[in-house]
Amino acid sequence: MTRSPESTGPEPDPGGRFAYHGLLRVIHERARLGILTSLATNPAGLFFIDLRKLCALTDGNLSRHLAALKEAGLVLVLRGSSGGRPQSLVKITATGRVRFTEYIAELERVVSDAMERSDAGEEAAEPWPDGWSPA
Amino acid sequence: MTRSPESTGPEPDPGGRFAYHGLLRVIHERARLGILTSLATNPAGLFFIDLRKLCALTDGNLSRHLAALKEAGLVLVLRGSSGGRPQSLVKITATGRVRFTEYIAELERVVSDAMERSDAGEEAAEPWPDGWSPA
Repeated sequence: MTRSPESTGPEPDPGGRFAYHGLLRVIHERARLGILTSLATNPAGLFFIDLRKLCALTDGNLSRHLAALKEAGLVLVLRGSSGGRPQSLVKITATGRVRFTEYIAELERVVSDAMERSDAGEEAAEPWPDGWSPA
Repeated sequence: MTRSPESTGPEPDPGGRFAYHGLLRVIHERARLGILTSLATNPAGLFFIDLRKLCALTDGNLSRHLAALKEAGLVLVLRGSSGGRPQSLVKITATGRVRFTEYIAELERVVSDAMERSDAGEEAAEPWPDGWSPA
């Protein structure tokens, strides 16, 4: 196996040390991450219009992301009324809560891995080895 | 402004409390997050073939993601040889390091926000309010 030029770094892992398979694609999209964090911190549910503001999304974008999350069984959308006006109420499901907790645990692993870099930061300013040129 | 059914939750914020604008799209893609974490923790650089293993990516996928990161000025790719064989060496740039550090700070905010949910988790099992039905 070819060695990395970073002699103190970890050796390549066939399992993919930095593959982060736990970052489920259906959750990882930036807007969906905001939606699920909003809903996880508001377990009684949020009105569509409030969720839209919290996540700074348009109606169309929020609807599109909610459809994907609903199909994956992570959220529920209910129709009803509040203050005499029709509203949609969005709530995280029990499955959504489990998947989101697992996702966040993987995210913590990314943050923890990234923090290791600070010890070795100065090396980044070193010149390239002789004989190497831009691709 | 319409009130959330979660009376103890935060009020909607016009700026988008959960918008997470700091999650730069060019970094946020799952594979690129793995690539940048690998490179940030190996500041002297990594050979293409080792990076591919660390991130559990195919040649084609790694090449495609590196092209996007290069165009954004976050990584450098150099050609040279090691052990008598041609190799590509990939390294994070100074700009890449700054952007990645900012990204990770935003990621920490997501994790911190998500942690708030654990106090209110039991509420999720409550029934829907009368008069609400699936959309």
